[in-house]
Amino acid sequence: MTSKIVFLRHGESQWNELNKFTGWNDIFLTKKGVKEAKKAGKILKKNNINFDIAYTSVLTRAIHTLWKILKKIKQPWIQVKKTWRLNERHYGALQGLNKEEIIPFYGKKKVSDWRRSFCSIPPKMNTVNDKFSGYDSRYSSMKKNNVPLGESLELTLNRVLPYWNNVILPQIKKNKNIIIVAHGNSLRALIKFLDKINEKDIPDLDIPTGKPIIYKFDKKFNPIGYYFL
Amino acid sequence: MTSKIVFLRHGESQWNELNKFTGWNDIFLTKKGVKEAKKAGKILKKNNINFDIAYTSVLTRAIHTLWKILKKIKQPWIQVKKTWRLNERHYGALQGLNKEEIIPFYGKKKVSDWRRSFCSIPPKMNTVNDKFSGYDSRYSSMKKNNVPLGESLELTLNRVLPYWNNVILPQIKKNKNIIIVAHGNSLRALIKFLDKINEKDIPDLDIPTGKPIIYKFDKKFNPIGYYFL
Repeated sequence: MTSKIVFLRHGESQWNELNKFTGWNDIFLTKKGVKEAKKAGKILKKNNINFDIAYTSVLTRAIHTLWKILKKIKQPWIQVKKTWRLNERHYGALQGLNKEEIIPFYGKKKVSDWRRSFCSIPPKMNTVNDKFSGYDSRYSSMKKNNVPLGESLELTLNRVLPYWNNVILPQIKKNKNIIIVAHGNSLRALIKFLDKINEKDIPDLDIPTGKPIIYKFDKKFNPIGYYFL
Repeated sequence: MTSKIVFLRHGESQWNELNKFTGWNDIFLTKKGVKEAKKAGKILKKNNINFDIAYTSVLTRAIHTLWKILKKIKQPWIQVKKTWRLNERHYGALQGLNKEEIIPFYGKKKVSDWRRSFCSIPPKMNTVNDKFSGYDSRYSSMKKNNVPLGESLELTLNRVLPYWNNVILPQIKKNKNIIIVAHGNSLRALIKFLDKINEKDIPDLDIPTGKPIIYKFDKKFNPIGYYFL
């Protein structure tokens, strides 16, 4: 029996609803987001998928989504590992701003690049900003100057990848069933890497909230694509 | 600043309500139990207590209680370690039976000893019983013949203690703030050990559901008693 690897973007958050750049801001699920999480759990249950281990970010919207799922599939007791490396991409000074409202100031092309391209880095947050994550106790084990001030998708991939290679992949190689509940851009980064999507095509990759993705690996644990459940 | 160590028995479960022996049966919280869990979170929040790490059992009623608390104190992101060693005492063949209804069969003294004494072992469960925990995937890492068939409070303490000494105490010595969400008898066992309660007095120790207990340690990390928050 091959193991099951499931990727899931958290349910809709309050800032998804408001069309704001969220990043590392710790925004809660909306009622719709909670429903999406429960539905994802229901779909997994219907497909008889259960897990040995779960990975998620240290952001509430992802953790709450995971809890709803584990409750639904009656597996609250599995190991859950939380890491900032699966956090959403840090959107720098854009965090909290409306994605449409900034277009008149920066232009459609620039805003689209910040949102969808691989290399474009958003304007950096200032460390005196009270939303600087370095002041948040959940990041207290990070060196202050490692706390991001704004990340491109590329920089996001650079900090997701060590965790994938050193922590998650070894579990896949032990044939564990794994669920990873993360974010639009931490998952985009990971899928770009696994599917070898080139930079030209990456703007088209969009991960919907609350839809379980089954990621397939061959017998040598090479990634061979995914489908939505 | 001294670290805060909080013990908490899960909120009321469906079998607490029905006055049944529960043990390792994986019974859910009642609505009242969910309320108790939320209230415990509220009390902790009001007292500005937050945590570095949480420990709980692999039983749903304890994990759901912990989740409600972490949600209420806005710390869903802390590390949570789940272990069978913090599970409720295994009640053997008594699991599922009503605590009052068995008195005519076994006598008040016997039933009281099974429930409250230190050494009395309940009648053992048979491994062919479909409630035998050895068939449950959450215990798949345990050797089948280590899965309990019925435990006295003493046997419960014997399997809680290695976890306390090897896993939890080292974190206390690092001055971490810790919450342990467990069960009536795994906590009774632990408190008997920490408070050096003798066997004669242990029947009087009862841990209410959903009430945070602050356990105090001196500067050399010796236990010096507890109070309810």
